[in-house]
Amino acid sequence: MISLGKRPTFDKLLMGPGPSTVDPRVLRAMSEPAMGYLDEDFLSILAETQDLLRYVFQTKNKLTLAVSGTGTAGMETALANLIEPGDRVLICVNGFFGNRMVEISRRYGADVSTVLAPMGEPIDPENLGRELKHIGKVKLIGVVHAETSTGVLQPLEEIVKLAHEHDAFVVVDAVTSLGGVEVPTDKLGLDVVYSGTQKCLSCPPGLAPITLREETANYLRKRSKEIGSFYFDLSIIEEYWDGGKTYHHTPSMNLIYALNEGLRMIVEEGIENRWKRHKINAMALSRGLEAMGLELLVKPEYRLPPLTTVKVPEGINEREVRKRLMAEYRIEIGAGLGELKGKVWRIGLMGSTSVRKNVILFLSAFGQILRSMGFKAHLEDAIDAATEVFRGE
Amino acid sequence: MISLGKRPTFDKLLMGPGPSTVDPRVLRAMSEPAMGYLDEDFLSILAETQDLLRYVFQTKNKLTLAVSGTGTAGMETALANLIEPGDRVLICVNGFFGNRMVEISRRYGADVSTVLAPMGEPIDPENLGRELKHIGKVKLIGVVHAETSTGVLQPLEEIVKLAHEHDAFVVVDAVTSLGGVEVPTDKLGLDVVYSGTQKCLSCPPGLAPITLREETANYLRKRSKEIGSFYFDLSIIEEYWDGGKTYHHTPSMNLIYALNEGLRMIVEEGIENRWKRHKINAMALSRGLEAMGLELLVKPEYRLPPLTTVKVPEGINEREVRKRLMAEYRIEIGAGLGELKGKVWRIGLMGSTSVRKNVILFLSAFGQILRSMGFKAHLEDAIDAATEVFRGE
Repeated sequence: MISLGKRPTFDKLLMGPGPSTVDPRVLRAMSEPAMGYLDEDFLSILAETQDLLRYVFQTKNKLTLAVSGTGTAGMETALANLIEPGDRVLICVNGFFGNRMVEISRRYGADVSTVLAPMGEPIDPENLGRELKHIGKVKLIGVVHAETSTGVLQPLEEIVKLAHEHDAFVVVDAVTSLGGVEVPTDKLGLDVVYSGTQKCLSCPPGLAPITLREETANYLRKRSKEIGSFYFDLSIIEEYWDGGKTYHHTPSMNLIYALNEGLRMIVEEGIENRWKRHKINAMALSRGLEAMGLELLVKPEYRLPPLTTVKVPEGINEREVRKRLMAEYRIEIGAGLGELKGKVWRIGLMGSTSVRKNVILFLSAFGQILRSMGFKAHLEDAIDAATEVFRGE
Repeated sequence: MISLGKRPTFDKLLMGPGPSTVDPRVLRAMSEPAMGYLDEDFLSILAETQDLLRYVFQTKNKLTLAVSGTGTAGMETALANLIEPGDRVLICVNGFFGNRMVEISRRYGADVSTVLAPMGEPIDPENLGRELKHIGKVKLIGVVHAETSTGVLQPLEEIVKLAHEHDAFVVVDAVTSLGGVEVPTDKLGLDVVYSGTQKCLSCPPGLAPITLREETANYLRKRSKEIGSFYFDLSIIEEYWDGGKTYHHTPSMNLIYALNEGLRMIVEEGIENRWKRHKINAMALSRGLEAMGLELLVKPEYRLPPLTTVKVPEGINEREVRKRLMAEYRIEIGAGLGELKGKVWRIGLMGSTSVRKNVILFLSAFGQILRSMGFKAHLEDAIDAATEVFRGE
């Protein structure tokens, strides 16, 4: 008998809250040899990547680049660069990542207020307006466009209108929306928008794309007190991305190669087509889950196409279902975070994962497992309902 | 005629201050598909990577992991976790990265003093002792083990002894030494040591290995005031690395795969063999450069094997030499940083780059370019001197 040490299995279908499936083209691009951080070839790739990022952010913002860290690094960059100790900030909290914005703002010395909504619901702009009247001048308003913990897509228009009427910057978390849902950066004049690479951009994690409106970038360039973090100081990072004018840190060339290729694939597909693809596959999944007899956490009008949250039926062990999906099908889905722990599953259809065959495979595998555990999942109805959506397309 | 858009050239020999050549095995490991951050397979890879890091750090420290950022992120993590506003810290500055430690300490609210040495020389422990007597109690002493800006290897023993006599933590920058030179973590009881992946570990950039002595880690776990940064908060990151006990951020699986494979290659080679390889190739390079008629910046006893700094001869345009090395040979070397700009070249022999053929190729290419620019480089003597070192081995 041959004895081999246990090696990991890489063949998994990533239908959780991220990372999503990375296309082989992107993996190949990433595995090119590294090169110098001031190499002309690398500086060209950086410049092209900035243009490609502007396309997915739908912006003309000069200060558009990728921070060398994950989505949370993007959040910290956005907040650390704007906040000075003692500043009043107002964070919209309807999930785990809103709470994280509160925590980071606090660490950078902000006086933080919140506007709340239950997990699974969007923030009501009326509540925001009332809070703004109540507390008076705030420097920035933080809002999560796509709450990865709940699957809520937050409408932004009224929030941005209120913020700008009150002369406050709007910081938008688009970690799970960028590349999968329209992010109206220039359309609404969002001040700062950040994201991560491993969700709807379908690249490996490790970079945080970020863009700042020119007026907001100018505020940074001129702020008198330097920011608390050196690693996240955008005024220096910006100079490096501008043709290597200064040295700040050695970026991960390989992650940049990957991001560049992933963004090229978005241009080839067309961003509007990509939004539509995410919408249709998510709708097929939702209809299928409902037809199966399950309940979704979020009302149809606020559902986030890249991430669907479905309630765990009574008497079903949610962890067991996830374990079986992995063991029997090598499919990963996510558990609930925070308050929703044990109460929902999070099913991602992001980037390259968002294709018809994954919807159908998932409904079949998931339904079969639920049936074997005693829940009467209507499998035929589920497949019919999903197929109906594809047919109507 | 076929018209093709300009694409980058990846075939370069990286003999600058980093990144170094990445072995194809590491590139292949990196290009495996991503997986979930709580996937059992991934958690196993993380645990194994911690063990491998302990081997290269020569430590048994429990808190040993890789921060999701570059070497500068490692520096910020080390300082941010130890410093509380108002703390007195003392930084040894003999180059660019010592100055960076000063800047980051200041941003986290420290009251910073410095002990200086000229660029190209090590810190004199006597000066440190005098400064300690003068300023009294300090919380931490920062020192750069391997100054990438000058090529100085700092002896640590006396500095650590002084620090511990004065009850101060020692924070050691081992960005350009780890994996190429002995880093005496447990031997000397270093409190915090951090590094980067793209130097002597020969992995792509993007991760910062770090290790903390148990007493120092306990200080963090108990410190009353939380640290200014959330992204770099080791007390939370540590819990994630400990079997995924908490969620902090989604690490870059692909960079971890790469690091894991790169570290496995170090175990296969044997860390002592690796130190010896770096030493011999660097000696061959130094002897070759001197025999050629050039002067090195650093005295023999303080030379850093992974990085050699050579002075630009009078009348030679240093930038032109680098440009020609890239254009004619696709070899990258580095320019001087800060005060040394225009005055030295920095030649790296790190990790996979540190092999005999690169020494010989470099001496030949470099010597030939210098000759064509009017400097009488003794090419034969250079090759003979380098070969002599290899023969004596």
